Amino acid sequence: MGPSSNLESAMQMLIKTFHKYSGKEGDKYTLSRGELKELLIEELGSYLGNSKDNEAVEKVMNDLDANNDGEVDFTEFIILMGALTVACNDFFLEMFENSCT
Amino acid sequence: MGPSSNLESAMQMLIKTFHKYSGKEGDKYTLSRGELKELLIEELGSYLGNSKDNEAVEKVMNDLDANNDGEVDFTEFIILMGALTVACNDFFLEMFENSCT
Repeated sequence: MGPSSNLESAMQMLIKTFHKYSGKEGDKYTLSRGELKELLIEELGSYLGNSKDNEAVEKVMNDLDANNDGEVDFTEFIILMGALTVACNDFFLEMFENSCT
Repeated sequence: MGPSSNLESAMQMLIKTFHKYSGKEGDKYTLSRGELKELLIEELGSYLGNSKDNEAVEKVMNDLDANNDGEVDFTEFIILMGALTVACNDFFLEMFENSCT
């Protein structure tokens, strides 16, 4: 096994970051509202506009928590990160297209 | 803006890697079969068992190419990466559980 490729590093970072927060309280393998809030503010603050209000966290939580148990599991977290990455890619492509016309 | 968090780096790596390959031939914003094959072998070789045969690439391509146009767009690529990351997380959790019982 050689050194990790960029894609392998990306996967490892997603897994590591989720467990850094999910392990703090309650179920070790899911994010509670408090853990999700901490993750969003500390890890995605600059993307989500540093909104520290509960309303934004509640909205993300309600969107994510597909099975309505008040906890976000790893699959739900990956769906959020996927949606954010697609949005981010669209944003950069649009900037690039505009800068070339 | 401070330095990128791990999650932000992961998103940037996914975007950068996709475009590194998608820009090589044909549509700049999608992966052709040839580009997908190159990406899978060079970036995920150790996860996918270094299978350099066309059959494995064809299988992934057919699974990914939801709209059947022979090209993989960024959203389809992110769905693959999400599925791989969830599988990878399950694998590590299982190893961890087994080592603790």
